[in-house]
Amino acid sequence: MSALGLTALCLAEPALAQQGSEEAAEAVAVSGGTAYIFNTLLFLIGGFLVMWMAAGFAMLEAGLVRAKNTSVQCLKNIGLYSIAGLMFWVIGYSIAYPGFEGGFFGIASFPYFMQGVGEADVATGYSVASDWFFQMVFCATTASIVSGTVAERVKIVPFFIFVTVLTGIIYPVIVSWEWGAGWLDAMGFSDFAGSTLVHSTGGWAALMGAIIIGPRIGRYVDGRVTVFAGANIPLATLGTFILWLGWFGFNGASQLAMGTVGDVSDVSKIFVNTNMAAAAGVVVAIIATQLRYGKADVTMALNGALAGLVAITAEPLAPSVGMSIIIGGIGGILPVIFVPILDKLKIDDVVGAIPVHLIAGIWGTLAVAISFPEVLVAQIIGIVATGVFVCITSGIVWFVLKATVGVRPTEEAELAGLDVSETGIESYPEFVRT
Amino acid sequence: MSALGLTALCLAEPALAQQGSEEAAEAVAVSGGTAYIFNTLLFLIGGFLVMWMAAGFAMLEAGLVRAKNTSVQCLKNIGLYSIAGLMFWVIGYSIAYPGFEGGFFGIASFPYFMQGVGEADVATGYSVASDWFFQMVFCATTASIVSGTVAERVKIVPFFIFVTVLTGIIYPVIVSWEWGAGWLDAMGFSDFAGSTLVHSTGGWAALMGAIIIGPRIGRYVDGRVTVFAGANIPLATLGTFILWLGWFGFNGASQLAMGTVGDVSDVSKIFVNTNMAAAAGVVVAIIATQLRYGKADVTMALNGALAGLVAITAEPLAPSVGMSIIIGGIGGILPVIFVPILDKLKIDDVVGAIPVHLIAGIWGTLAVAISFPEVLVAQIIGIVATGVFVCITSGIVWFVLKATVGVRPTEEAELAGLDVSETGIESYPEFVRT
Amino acid sequence: MSALGLTALCLAEPALAQQGSEEAAEAVAVSGGTAYIFNTLLFLIGGFLVMWMAAGFAMLEAGLVRAKNTSVQCLKNIGLYSIAGLMFWVIGYSIAYPGFEGGFFGIASFPYFMQGVGEADVATGYSVASDWFFQMVFCATTASIVSGTVAERVKIVPFFIFVTVLTGIIYPVIVSWEWGAGWLDAMGFSDFAGSTLVHSTGGWAALMGAIIIGPRIGRYVDGRVTVFAGANIPLATLGTFILWLGWFGFNGASQLAMGTVGDVSDVSKIFVNTNMAAAAGVVVAIIATQLRYGKADVTMALNGALAGLVAITAEPLAPSVGMSIIIGGIGGILPVIFVPILDKLKIDDVVGAIPVHLIAGIWGTLAVAISFPEVLVAQIIGIVATGVFVCITSGIVWFVLKATVGVRPTEEAELAGLDVSETGIESYPEFVRT
Repeated sequence: MSALGLTALCLAEPALAQQGSEEAAEAVAVSGGTAYIFNTLLFLIGGFLVMWMAAGFAMLEAGLVRAKNTSVQCLKNIGLYSIAGLMFWVIGYSIAYPGFEGGFFGIASFPYFMQGVGEADVATGYSVASDWFFQMVFCATTASIVSGTVAERVKIVPFFIFVTVLTGIIYPVIVSWEWGAGWLDAMGFSDFAGSTLVHSTGGWAALMGAIIIGPRIGRYVDGRVTVFAGANIPLATLGTFILWLGWFGFNGASQLAMGTVGDVSDVSKIFVNTNMAAAAGVVVAIIATQLRYGKADVTMALNGALAGLVAITAEPLAPSVGMSIIIGGIGGILPVIFVPILDKLKIDDVVGAIPVHLIAGIWGTLAVAISFPEVLVAQIIGIVATGVFVCITSGIVWFVLKATVGVRPTEEAELAGLDVSETGIESYPEFVRT
Repeated sequence: MSALGLTALCLAEPALAQQGSEEAAEAVAVSGGTAYIFNTLLFLIGGFLVMWMAAGFAMLEAGLVRAKNTSVQCLKNIGLYSIAGLMFWVIGYSIAYPGFEGGFFGIASFPYFMQGVGEADVATGYSVASDWFFQMVFCATTASIVSGTVAERVKIVPFFIFVTVLTGIIYPVIVSWEWGAGWLDAMGFSDFAGSTLVHSTGGWAALMGAIIIGPRIGRYVDGRVTVFAGANIPLATLGTFILWLGWFGFNGASQLAMGTVGDVSDVSKIFVNTNMAAAAGVVVAIIATQLRYGKADVTMALNGALAGLVAITAEPLAPSVGMSIIIGGIGGILPVIFVPILDKLKIDDVVGAIPVHLIAGIWGTLAVAISFPEVLVAQIIGIVATGVFVCITSGIVWFVLKATVGVRPTEEAELAGLDVSETGIESYPEFVRT
Repeated sequence: MSALGLTALCLAEPALAQQGSEEAAEAVAVSGGTAYIFNTLLFLIGGFLVMWMAAGFAMLEAGLVRAKNTSVQCLKNIGLYSIAGLMFWVIGYSIAYPGFEGGFFGIASFPYFMQGVGEADVATGYSVASDWFFQMVFCATTASIVSGTVAERVKIVPFFIFVTVLTGIIYPVIVSWEWGAGWLDAMGFSDFAGSTLVHSTGGWAALMGAIIIGPRIGRYVDGRVTVFAGANIPLATLGTFILWLGWFGFNGASQLAMGTVGDVSDVSKIFVNTNMAAAAGVVVAIIATQLRYGKADVTMALNGALAGLVAITAEPLAPSVGMSIIIGGIGGILPVIFVPILDKLKIDDVVGAIPVHLIAGIWGTLAVAISFPEVLVAQIIGIVATGVFVCITSGIVWFVLKATVGVRPTEEAELAGLDVSETGIESYPEFVRT
């Protein structure tokens, strides 16, 4: 999804497939106007599927927090999606796509102009509004990742302020380095749909939040880990299915074009690889927990699906189906390994977002080198640079918030549940709780 | 979405965009057959997205009623969607699109013939079955609005009878006035995707229901309002996300065509404006409740999203992004203001559908005049005429039902919950309730 | 969806509609490349909609089992979808489409090769990866049907082994007979989207499971049926709405092409007929239970929708809307009749999947003869042959599992709930249960 690739993909020239002759070229010809519509439609379908992932994160997190914090988690999720949209329009998109080549930071203009009624620049190959919409929902996804990790102990005001900075500045800067044709792109770094740009970025920001905010009260006491079981497993399952569905848009539409027979075939291949990586993640997580604990852990199966999806996201097109299964399967084992490690480090990640999005995101970014060995060094540089930048910037924001408005509710409020103190609406007011 | 606009949009002529030269025209040319497929596909995608809104209403309402009435609310929602489909085929579509120009009431023929196998009239520019499907799901939406307001105190038989009349006659007549090329359309009234036609119509019918049926037992006692908290906030959140997703179909596909580069670009612009209005509604509702009550009310945030969506529905294309944010943001404040007002008037609206669909629908219809000042008078006439017609007709139906089959269960049954008396299936039979 | 029909549909020749003249043909002409993109897009959209049905089954079943078995039901559903994908790639697709004509069993090659990057064979008329994706989600649906019937009493290991055989061999063999151009296809058997191939196959496998595994402890004691009420009716409602939505992909995309104006119009007609059959199923189930029990049973309404959908699946295109309503309406009455009959036979079908998928599947397959009387004998042969084959093969698998790894948990574990013994994760750990 580099800027050069973007340009190339959007010329709407008929792909020659494998035939090579003039006649064959004619058989697959698609007019420029038709290609424009197809490309735009891909962004719209992909966009609404990824928008739907916001609901997936909301349900996953609502299912995995305790009942006393569920309403606040719902509020945070619909709020962050809204803020992401507004911020990505005000400033984010202009930072993400500043128009430089090989640069570190720039701003095109703001707010983003979008397009007039009936306006359609055929040379671009797609409606710029459809592209903006598709890019915006990726920005929102990054913020969704954070909310799960820092759940149950952050007040909504500092959380929303953090989201504002993350979606308006931090994420867009990272995007500008790669998809915005910045220095990482120039170096050859490759991240098809965002294992690093979206998932690791969200993961690093979540990690810094977890460290700076600290664990939930009672979580790590006397060297023991207390399990705070999620209140509603079917909701978490629903959230995972929603995310899986949305990922067809996330990865598939990151092909950025379907106005040629070659492009739409590649979108199809991406659908298959994406699905198989997730499937492998599930199966591996089930087998691993069955072998390790004697029981198949359902939340690990859900995280296995997501980790498989994150892992294939950096390169969902080039691998064969078999290789996609391997990449996703390795992804699926990562939460099984890293969830206990984080707990040993007393990093309290409520939904397991750090193993799923950060660790599997790193793995997926490295796995691009299986298909393209020449990018390995660039991949490592990209992973490290993203980590350093996001950790520093999000660390500063979390610290400033902690020092000013404060990030945590009172101990009393946290123990009573954030629903009472932060929104005043209980999530399940009629059900008697233990 | 007037009949004239419809014809114009569906000619599938290549849009000239801004270039104007013959060469440019060729570059964006889309063949008639291809445009037909695109237009039909828009109706199908838009149609299934709006169909999905039926699930959104079901979840929103299931989450906001008390546990003892949840199963009945589910039953009502799947029942009303089914009845709407059947009635819109038997008679509704023929009333909505009677073939007159400037008229008040007419019937084309019934039941609607639909189309034969393989039948495709290219001159129409789209499959008539796809158009019918898209229109039908709008009809169902109107009925969904009513079920939320009158929840927890209406028996299913009178409710389903009301839905039968609403979807078979009342809603179709309103549609015929505007989208069916009737007198409101002739006057210049403008309602792109139905702020008045769908949302206010549903809202007026709900208002009459709430007044005639009366409030729930114990709701208003000694001048005090008793809060009956919703049983399942994450479900309500899910419902809101579903509705938000479905709204891309609701507004986007109301462009009625994507067979030209201009049309598909407009659909994209509508996606963006729709999303931003909702986002603004959420943010405004969060800030308003935080300022007013010291806590950010999650149900108000959900209603803020919906009110923002309703507000932008009458004209989601013409406004700039900034203006869409303003229109949606004003929408988002309306539930915060009008929910307490309705309670003062002892109008018991269980889910807040009247502020969201009626009040924000009126606001959205008036806001069309921001883009097109010349329509202001027609907008007011359209709002008033719709209100008068729907209030009278739905008032009559509710009254007749009250006087004949009766609308309310016994006091005993209502206090025990309608699940026991009406469906015999408890919604959460194992969870101990307070 | 026969192989011959497939070839014919995918030539991407401009449909002549009804005009017949050369000029008219030109008006509807769609280039080969454009048709290829449309056909592929139909598979992708249909595919993700049917994938979403996996979530629908998960929610339907999670809502209809008791709280103590809900997490395991979630685990089974995400696991079976994953296994189905892997097995259909390893061996299933190659058995389903072996390349024979009129045969009984064959294997093309394995694992399925899929396609290379940028590869697009225009002569095929669609991306082979998109076709594989669409076929795969059908395979997963078959497995989903089984999990509902045998819920609450099967250990996950034998269940997943059964799913492996079902999706890798049993289902693919049945598919090869008809859609794979085997002997049933040669005989004239007709099953557009799989009333028999998918739904009855799943239903027979579920029936054999229910018989061999036996009923849940306490279900049939002293000649009485104990009702084990579902724990979460709104979740079951959500699942039904998801399935209804997914069915537009299931039936609509089984047209296998939308690259001509005729094909996309037929897809539209299928959308309408599918919706109306489901609507009729709901209304009939509501009326029937209201008349029979004096209350409208919400779970019967949900099953009515599904039975209506299954019934129209064998031929969703040819019938008129009125006939679709009749076919779906008859479908809707079947669960009302057959749920009690199964209980009399002490066949314990937790969610009613046997009446919905097997009985309504048989009815739908026979109902094809309303449109095409000449196929009646072939339909009966197909129904019987499928039943015999699936019963024998799945019966053997269930028996072997029973005799080796064992299918049931200990009585103690079953009474405590499978969540504790099989996954160790309670579904609703905080809610006090009766």
